Parts: sequence; C-alpha cells; structure tokens
Amino acid sequence: MAKFEELAATIRQQITAGVWQVGEKLPSLREQTFQSGMSLMTVMHSYQILEGQGWIISRPQSGYYVAPKAEFLSVPKAQNRMAHIGKVDMNAYIFDILQTISDPDIVPFGSAFPDPSLSPLSQVTRALAAVAREITTAELLDYLPPGNFSLRSAIAKRYAQAGVNVSPDEIVITAGALESLNLSLQAVTKPGDWVVIEDPCFYGALQAVEKLGLNAVSVTSDPQSSIDLAALADVLASTEIKACWLMTNSQNPLGYTLSIEKKRQLAAMLEQHNVVLIEDDVYSELYFGQEKPKPAMAYMPQRNSLHCGSFSKSLVAGFRIGWVAAGNYAEEVKKLQLMSTLSTSVPMQLALAKYLSTQNYDRHLRGIRKTLEQRKNLAWQCLKKHLPENVIINYSASGYFLWIELPAAVDASRLCAIMLDHHVSIAPGNMFTTGGDYNNYFRINVSYPWNSREEEAVMRLSSEIRRLENPENIFGYNK
Amino acid sequence: MAKFEELAATIRQQITAGVWQVGEKLPSLREQTFQSGMSLMTVMHSYQILEGQGWIISRPQSGYYVAPKAEFLSVPKAQNRMAHIGKVDMNAYIFDILQTISDPDIVPFGSAFPDPSLSPLSQVTRALAAVAREITTAELLDYLPPGNFSLRSAIAKRYAQAGVNVSPDEIVITAGALESLNLSLQAVTKPGDWVVIEDPCFYGALQAVEKLGLNAVSVTSDPQSSIDLAALADVLASTEIKACWLMTNSQNPLGYTLSIEKKRQLAAMLEQHNVVLIEDDVYSELYFGQEKPKPAMAYMPQRNSLHCGSFSKSLVAGFRIGWVAAGNYAEEVKKLQLMSTLSTSVPMQLALAKYLSTQNYDRHLRGIRKTLEQRKNLAWQCLKKHLPENVIINYSASGYFLWIELPAAVDASRLCAIMLDHHVSIAPGNMFTTGGDYNNYFRINVSYPWNSREEEAVMRLSSEIRRLENPENIFGYNK
Repeated sequence: MAKFEELAATIRQQITAGVWQVGEKLPSLREQTFQSGMSLMTVMHSYQILEGQGWIISRPQSGYYVAPKAEFLSVPKAQNRMAHIGKVDMNAYIFDILQTISDPDIVPFGSAFPDPSLSPLSQVTRALAAVAREITTAELLDYLPPGNFSLRSAIAKRYAQAGVNVSPDEIVITAGALESLNLSLQAVTKPGDWVVIEDPCFYGALQAVEKLGLNAVSVTSDPQSSIDLAALADVLASTEIKACWLMTNSQNPLGYTLSIEKKRQLAAMLEQHNVVLIEDDVYSELYFGQEKPKPAMAYMPQRNSLHCGSFSKSLVAGFRIGWVAAGNYAEEVKKLQLMSTLSTSVPMQLALAKYLSTQNYDRHLRGIRKTLEQRKNLAWQCLKKHLPENVIINYSASGYFLWIELPAAVDASRLCAIMLDHHVSIAPGNMFTTGGDYNNYFRINVSYPWNSREEEAVMRLSSEIRRLENPENIFGYNK
Repeated sequence: MAKFEELAATIRQQITAGVWQVGEKLPSLREQTFQSGMSLMTVMHSYQILEGQGWIISRPQSGYYVAPKAEFLSVPKAQNRMAHIGKVDMNAYIFDILQTISDPDIVPFGSAFPDPSLSPLSQVTRALAAVAREITTAELLDYLPPGNFSLRSAIAKRYAQAGVNVSPDEIVITAGALESLNLSLQAVTKPGDWVVIEDPCFYGALQAVEKLGLNAVSVTSDPQSSIDLAALADVLASTEIKACWLMTNSQNPLGYTLSIEKKRQLAAMLEQHNVVLIEDDVYSELYFGQEKPKPAMAYMPQRNSLHCGSFSKSLVAGFRIGWVAAGNYAEEVKKLQLMSTLSTSVPMQLALAKYLSTQNYDRHLRGIRKTLEQRKNLAWQCLKKHLPENVIINYSASGYFLWIELPAAVDASRLCAIMLDHHVSIAPGNMFTTGGDYNNYFRINVSYPWNSREEEAVMRLSSEIRRLENPENIFGYNK
C-alpha cells in the first residue's frame, strides 16, 4: 500500500473509531506533515482521497473537517448484482463524445485519451522515418499473427522489467487493446457462456459481451473499496463462470488500483474456480507512485489468463498498436485475428520496436507521469473550488480520470448534452453500465494543461449542475 | 463482354452446333487471328479459356482439338445447393498455408497474395518517410472512424475514374478488406439471419458467417458459367435473405469475372427482393483487358450495397489498409469499428493518401497487370506441359489464380500435405467450401516469376498427383 493510502486508512479508522467526530476539524496539512513524518504531497494525497470518498470536507481559508456523511461510510457500498446484459445501446453520444477529441473547439473533458501533446511525437516519427528508409520486402511480408518478433520481444522485456515473466511467443500484436479484449473474450468463450465484468466498467467490454452473445454478471465496484471480492466469491460459487474481465490498475472509469493483497485474493479465487482472467491494463504505465503496479495475473501461478496492453494511452494513440499476452490461448487468438483483421501494419510495428530499443520510452514515461500527477492536482483544486459542495470528486493516484458524483437529482446525460452545446464534453456514467445506476455520475479527463479555458469550462459545468439540480428556480428551463 | 470472351462464346456455340466435332482440329492460332481480325493474344486467351473449361485440348506440336468431353458441357453444371453452415473448421493447414508466404524456402503456390516483389516498395516507403517527417499532432489525433479524409477522397476519385459514384462520406477506412467484410456483414445482419454466399468462395466469408451466427445458402458457382443466377433467383424467391456476399470481379478461388449483363441481372434481382449486396472487390485492379470492370453495385440505382476494397492485393500487403464504401450503412459500420478495432494506423493512411496523390499508382497498376498476365501465361504453359492430361486448368483472364480440377480420386488436402513436405504450398479446394464438394480441386498462385524452381515444383506436383491417382501402383504408399 502506498504511503498516502496508509495515512488515509489510518484517518478513516480514526473517524470510524470516533477519534474525530463529525464536524470536527482535522489536523492541517502542515500539522499532519509534521506528525506523520510524511511529505506535504503525500499528506495532500491522503486528504484528497478522503475528501473524494466523502469522509472529510474542506472549507476555504479554514481547513479540513469530518464530513456529516462520514458516519454512513463504514457500511460497505459494494454489492453483488446479477444482470443479463441485453442489447447494449451504442448511444449516439458515445460516438459524439469520442469524436470531440479531434475537434479543437471543444474542451475534451470526455475524451478517453491523454492530451496528445504529451506524446513524444518527434521521437516516434523519427523512428518511423528510419523504418520507412530501411524496410525490406522480407520484413513487409511478415504481416501475419502474432506480429513482428522484435516488437514482441521488446514488450516481453518490459514485462520482465516489471517482474512479470512473459515470453515473446505468448504475445500477439493487435490494433490496440480494444482488439485484444475482443479477441481474448472470443478465445475463451462461446455464445451463451457467463462472464464476470465490473460495474461500472469500460464500455468496450459491455459492447464486446453483447456482440459475442455472452451472459454477464456485473460485480459492483466503487472508487473506495474497488471491486467487491466477497460478492465476486459468491458469484463464482453459484454460477459457472468462464472468464472474468477486469481492470486492476487505474480502473476505467473509477480510477482505483487494486492493492497487492486484493490482487492476490482475486488471483487465488479465480484459480480455485478455474476461471480465466482477462485483464485490461492499458493505464498501468501511468501510476504516480514509486513502482509500477503488477497486474493480477502476476499472482496466478497457473497463469490461466490473458493480459491486454497498448501504447495508445502511454505513448501515442494514432499508431493503433496494442498486444495481448495470451499465454496458452496465443494460438487461438492468432487464429481469430487471422479471421478478422489479419494483422497490424508492419511499418508501425517496426517503428515501435525501434523506439522501444532506446531509453526514450522510459524517459518519456517518467515525464508524463509527473505531468499527469501535477495536472490532476490542479484539476482537483479547480473542481473543488467551483463545483457545488454536494458534488463528490473521487480522486485516484494514477491515470488522468476523475470520477464525479453529482447530486442524485442531476442526470449526467442531460448535463452532457447541455455541455456539448457549450463546447465542453464529459463522459456520463451510463456510458459505463447497463444497469443505469450511474445516471448522476460522470468521468472527467484531466490530462490537459489547466488554463483559463479549462477553468471557465468547470465554472460553466458548475452553473449547469446547479440549474439541473434546481430546475424550479429557472423559469422555463425545462420546456 | 471482352473480345476473347466473345470469341470463346462463338467457338462454344460452334462446337455445340456441331460445326466442330469431337476430335476435330480447330483453326490454328495464326489462322484464327487472321479469320477473326483479333490479336494473337486475344485468340490465345480464348483458346486458353476453352481449354480450361474442357471444351478443347491442345496437343504439342500439333494444335487445338475439340475435347472428348465437350459434348457434355452444354448441360449447365451450376446448381442451387442449400446449406446451413455449421462450425467452420479453421483447419490447421489454412494457417500453415497462409504462413508459407513468409517462408523463403517454400514455393508459395498456396499464397493468397501476389508476389511481394511486384510492390513499388521504394515509392510507398518514400511517401511514408515524408509523412513521418511532416505529421502533426492534429493529424495524429484524427484516428477515429471513418478514417483520414484525404485518403477517403483519393479512393472516391478512383471510383469516379472507373465510372462509379461514391462520396468520401460513404467510405470507412479499415485494416483491410477482411475487416471490411466482417463489419459489412455485422452492419446488415443479426444472428440467425440468412445470407447468400457463393460456393466455392473466399474462406474469410465462411468464417465470418459462422462467427456471426448467420445461416447461409450457398449458390454454386463454377469457372465457366460463374454464379448461377437462376439458382439465386430461386433462393431469393423462397427464402428471406438479408444480404448476398459475392465477388463479381476475379472471383476467389475460381477467377471468373461476371459479364456486365450478368451484373445487371444480379443487381436487378437483389433490388427487386430488397437484398443488400456485399461485394468483395479486392482484385478489381488486376484485370487484363482494356477497361477496369465495374462492380455490380454500379448497376444498383438504389445502391443498397456495401463495396469492400483494399490496397493489399494491388499495392502492398503489409500496410494493412482497406476500405468499405458503405453507402447508407456507413454510420453503422463506423459504430461497429469503434467497438472492435477503433480505427487504423494514421501514418499508414496518410502515406497512402500521399502516394495516391501522384500518378505512381496508375503507372504501377499498368505494369503489374502486364506482368501478371505474362506470368499467368507462362504458368499455364508450364502446367499444361507437366500436369497429367486429365487435370483441368481453369484459366481466367485477370488476377493471379488458376483453379485446378484433379481427377476425382485425388484428394487435394492430401496432396497439399504431401507437397508441403516438398516445400511447395497449394490451396486445396475444401478451404473454400463447407460442402466438401471440392476435394479434388486446388487454387494455385501464379504471380511469381516462372523459373526452374517453379517448374520443378510443378513437376513434383504432377508426379504426386499421379501417385495419388493410382495408389495401387506404388507399393506401401498408403501405409
């Protein structure tokens, strides 16, 4: 557990134990820094987490106080919910929101991708230009699954660097993690099989489940407690589950990263029931701590798992290169790819392999992690400053999303439509669920530089939230 | 109808009418050239077609004779065959055969792609290098469906050049025609729907039909009479068909190109029954005649069709760029792509757009057409020289495949396995069917330079065919 998480846990225990009563003032950041011996940044992270979780509130010019609702938080929120996923409606606005990223006139809070100016564009295009000069006919011929060997080898080396053993032979290069996910699900299931997904989760998983004719049990996850393993255990004991699709690092949209202990428990549980783990790990490079978090599959000795990765979030999106470490399923994944897209552009694979052969990627990652952490903090402060007090901002110490809970009366889809008219996109909660329990949530992308344009967008967001919360105050607004 | 087809049709009529009797000698090439006023090449094509179809046979140093079996050929071979496609078995050897293309030690008669040395590699990589130097962040951001506008615009211009009206807005860039085909089928059908396919046909269509849970009626096609439109009409009248998946130009594996008249009939038939046409037209640039054949969709005024194209066969395979002109289904196709692969590598799209903005593509196509025609003729002569007399070589005047009919006793899958041991691949007929009626057929790729290595491979092929035909002659062979 990271230090800021330890401190947050300690303070939560203290509140639960009554050390700090509702309404009481907590030690200031400075005092806490002094008391805990931790850095100011660590303490700030802890307080942000607690505030995001609703345990404490901050009052400008005054400090942090135990929140009125803190007393209810001891009861775990997560619960098991069974759902047969029916027709997933590819809402028109999902498409609209995704398209906003290429429209320079729209503040892209709804985007799924990090600020593209964070890409080391000149470095990767230099590699591409070199490939274009040097590529041979024989290399161009090597376009069938599993993909270019030097790229697979470079990816295997990155696994090794993170302490995970993966052979290049297990890796299949794909057109991005979305193709990896689709191929992985196809490789281990047949129509009618049951799988477990999280709720809320990446909409691509919902779509894949629907497209492949699978049945899904969704296990509720939340930003505080992450996935409810007790609920998952119930599901595994009562239903014959084929595969479990999860994000254990920087979960999209909630942002949490499972602790090592939870990953171990998850892994043991799945191996006990012989359930395949399909892990979507596209944000794993964008951690804020000291060490790259391992995937849960690293804790599965039998390695009955497929691990999906990508360069789209950590390096450059437009190249469209991802992979899946498919273990024993590699042959099946290759055959499925041969039937669907055949393979991925050879020059792009070679360009990435060339780029990865340098130290540039690690240098770039160190930089982007720092930048994303700074921007997330700026965004957090800005959101806290402007959004209504009853809006909960769930902070997570990795990636570039914040998960926002609006007052129950506010419909985030409605807010989304209104904000698009104001040239601001957000990603409403019902993009990430089929249950519809997240109507008053949205995901915000905070990877962009935090300037007046962003602040104005937040102020507009705030005023629209207030209008939607109290429609009777605004004559004619609902007409 | 092309001139050589006219002449072939005339001679067929003459034989049917008894002008030329079985065993009788036909006018020599020179005589026929003089009589018909056509070029030697045209006459040669006609004779090759007739020979491929089994109407005539050639005797070395002597000339062309009406074949003994010609009298049976007046009875149309094609017939309607209903088939519910069950589990399509992705036979291990399909994968093996596809992989042979990157193994320099194997004579790649089984390959689906043209000789890669025919690619204008330095031209396209020069375009790619230029793109790598010039690409902007904004361009890299433009990676969502439908794909890069300048590439779509260049493709639309090529349609216009061929006399077909397609707007860039109808076009979606894909990772190749295989993705186009899969997305097209998904866009117009739901599981359980009925579609029409040809038999034999491209195995990718069989796999897509199975994967999507569709029911298929296969309409028999053959190299002589192409698709049986009367049978198709029966199917359309008796079954509620959602879509019809066809290749009208250089059908894979048979090689035929539908006449304009047949395309018109097909188009009218489909429009009458409101059936969507999905056309796979990846070989359309590789015609041998004067004019690029139009797709059948050009004859559908209501344009209820999707037209799949690619640069993989005509330019370079390793780039993995294709498209679908999806008409009214463009929105649906875009959404489906957004759910599966998201999109295609941006630099590759820009590189192709840049290349297409020059005259180089047309220049390249003129060259490759001529080379393929020459090589096909060389291959034809070599095959005629070495293969047993009872082997029928179906010639087609486009593309780079020949469709070979073996004596009924010879199992082409068996032959395929034996030939792979001899480092020669072929594509056995049962790759292209689920009915299993093509066990004694195979497809041969004749796009490679025809040297001693190829001739030796053909001689080996010939001797293995003889051995398989008469196993009793070879003691212990079947053990």
